[in-house]
Amino acid sequence: MNSEIITIGDELLIGQVIDTNSAWIGQELSKIGVKVLQKKSIGDTREAILDALYKASKKSSIVILTGGLGPTKDDITKHTLCEFFQTQLVQNEKVLKWVTSIFTMRNLPMLESNNQQAMVPENCEVLWNKNGTAPGMWFKVKDVIYISLPGVPFEMKTIFTEEVIPKLLQQFQFPTILHRTILTCNIGESFLAKRIENLENELPEHIKLAYLPSVGMVRLRFSAYGNNLPILENELTAIIEKLYKLIGNYIYGEGDDNLAEVLGKLLLQSKKSLATAESCSGGYIAHQITSIPGSSAYFKGAIISYDNSVKIEQLQVPANIIESNGAVSEACVSTMANNVRKLLKTDYAIATSGVAGPGGGTPEKPVGTVWIAVSSEKQTKTSVFNFGDNRERTIQRTAIQGLDMLRKLLVQENQS
Amino acid sequence: MNSEIITIGDELLIGQVIDTNSAWIGQELSKIGVKVLQKKSIGDTREAILDALYKASKKSSIVILTGGLGPTKDDITKHTLCEFFQTQLVQNEKVLKWVTSIFTMRNLPMLESNNQQAMVPENCEVLWNKNGTAPGMWFKVKDVIYISLPGVPFEMKTIFTEEVIPKLLQQFQFPTILHRTILTCNIGESFLAKRIENLENELPEHIKLAYLPSVGMVRLRFSAYGNNLPILENELTAIIEKLYKLIGNYIYGEGDDNLAEVLGKLLLQSKKSLATAESCSGGYIAHQITSIPGSSAYFKGAIISYDNSVKIEQLQVPANIIESNGAVSEACVSTMANNVRKLLKTDYAIATSGVAGPGGGTPEKPVGTVWIAVSSEKQTKTSVFNFGDNRERTIQRTAIQGLDMLRKLLVQENQS
Repeated sequence: MNSEIITIGDELLIGQVIDTNSAWIGQELSKIGVKVLQKKSIGDTREAILDALYKASKKSSIVILTGGLGPTKDDITKHTLCEFFQTQLVQNEKVLKWVTSIFTMRNLPMLESNNQQAMVPENCEVLWNKNGTAPGMWFKVKDVIYISLPGVPFEMKTIFTEEVIPKLLQQFQFPTILHRTILTCNIGESFLAKRIENLENELPEHIKLAYLPSVGMVRLRFSAYGNNLPILENELTAIIEKLYKLIGNYIYGEGDDNLAEVLGKLLLQSKKSLATAESCSGGYIAHQITSIPGSSAYFKGAIISYDNSVKIEQLQVPANIIESNGAVSEACVSTMANNVRKLLKTDYAIATSGVAGPGGGTPEKPVGTVWIAVSSEKQTKTSVFNFGDNRERTIQRTAIQGLDMLRKLLVQENQS
Repeated sequence: MNSEIITIGDELLIGQVIDTNSAWIGQELSKIGVKVLQKKSIGDTREAILDALYKASKKSSIVILTGGLGPTKDDITKHTLCEFFQTQLVQNEKVLKWVTSIFTMRNLPMLESNNQQAMVPENCEVLWNKNGTAPGMWFKVKDVIYISLPGVPFEMKTIFTEEVIPKLLQQFQFPTILHRTILTCNIGESFLAKRIENLENELPEHIKLAYLPSVGMVRLRFSAYGNNLPILENELTAIIEKLYKLIGNYIYGEGDDNLAEVLGKLLLQSKKSLATAESCSGGYIAHQITSIPGSSAYFKGAIISYDNSVKIEQLQVPANIIESNGAVSEACVSTMANNVRKLLKTDYAIATSGVAGPGGGTPEKPVGTVWIAVSSEKQTKTSVFNFGDNRERTIQRTAIQGLDMLRKLLVQENQS
């Protein structure tokens, strides 16, 4: 089962936008056993779209297009699809109602260009776009399936997950592939590889391991190929049990787990609450926590003390601690953690103070130096890190470490 | 002058790695006026590489390949290039010396696979890779230039900048392409299109406009094609002046500007400071602000009052305001803004309170309802929005609106 992904838009060709859609689609197709033969990015022209559709249909039985479905006139995908399939645009009542309801809800007038979004090629099945006004479209012509999706990533992803994947699974028999992904943080890829070297060497031929690194994290994806799902499940379970014995301390979850979500579940289960006091992370930890639906049940709030005056006045860090130790110090960060916990009346707290850079470094505390503290009523744990000279990475890695330090503290206190 | 970029590697097709190389190359080529006709990602197979080379050479006079030049056996680009050009690999003494010197310097033994890196197709010119062991290669066959580069981004980029671009400029006369991108926020794509309909219809043939939407923002990219740079610059300047007259209120910047950065520059220029009081945005505005290097010069901090107790105790919102109006109200959010400004002793403040969802909605205040206030010593401005039922989008749009409302307030107060 071969597929091709075609992404449409001049902005991709001149490099103004990095194409992340096709990588995401490639991952999702791989999971269900569809091979991606090639990916192509083309410009917003009729000729390029027709040529790409024609060539893809010669080699692949699933052709996926993204982009070029917006309401403005530089979007010509829909008209070109009509030309390719020798059909015409017709108004889809369901889509029209939906688009109208969005504008009514937002109290905005409908424009003629919005009406156009309800026009779809006559031979397509509409794929529901609950996050936007441009519908996805599904065509089946001569044993080839063509799927056209909007280019806005969150719209495309929802349609793909909720509409495209179920329809593909319904129409085709795919080989059995079982994926399990183990999530680790705060250990580098090469160190991880060294630790699990023997396990990796002993994997049978039909089980593959891929390392998927991102900032501060490495995902380990095991893929088992075969015909018998229960057998594959047993094999993978045994391997992953071994993995937990080797590197369990670095594993924070599996699959699509999110570190802030894992921490949130631990807090919910133990009916505990959390606050943060953030200097160098500047609210990023609070943002990570509050990105999780339902976080208001355990997250009370934060004091972002970017300026030392806020550390002293709002967080009540004694001025002499900052004078003698500096704001980037164990004494400061542990006081921040304990004080925010008491002030906001929570069970736990995370605090950060560091030099995110590019300015502010000294020979003693170079750019990238970050102190993190986690605190409960019983104990305060602190650590110092050097996350290097990239500001964005330092903020991200501070958040991952802070969340993970508290996760470990919670696991430990729940066990005892 | 047309070009095609071919990126090689199975990891790109299964989405394990996002292809950033081709976007970067696209930017560099656009700058010198080379049009990128299409980009393609293909697997590590002889057939796919031969097919891609053949097809690209029919349409483009510059064909750029990246990837598949490493020392391991799945890298077959070099052998396939020999097959395509009907030539053979020969040892390049200069490259061999270089590779040997790298291993000597790092005190590592040379493996046979490393020796192989000095083997290049007989008809190529070697492009110097000062950051790695795989050389770049330049071929000119029948008026088509083929350039093969390693896939490691920092190796590729250096070869491209220092070797490829100068050689291209030496060999060709390029047409001039001028891009200017205008950044707007808080106006939908279709409304924007309606407002600038006449301007768009009156654009000359050689000037193109593209709409690039993302959450809460639309970028307008004008591309002017011609031979004379000063003339193109004058034309675009005149068009963009008209654009400012039509939609100036929605424009927050140009090119690579970032909304939080634009706001930061205004604060720096006027030597003013900022704090935030965030409920539904949960620290995301503080994070946006502190992502900008140097933000500690104007950002003092934030109080994230997710729980009402923090609104009452830390932000000193009178409990009866919350009792009678609710936390998601104009009265609450304007008190939050003014109080955080006074408590943290800043000149300006942004405050947010809303229902991010999925829970917490009521018929009166459905999910997506967000109150935002911006405050200075002179005035407080408030607005209410409905951002819909996607939690992540609501948080993002709250931040964009909050930052933009303060930007407008600053512009207004600076002018008066």
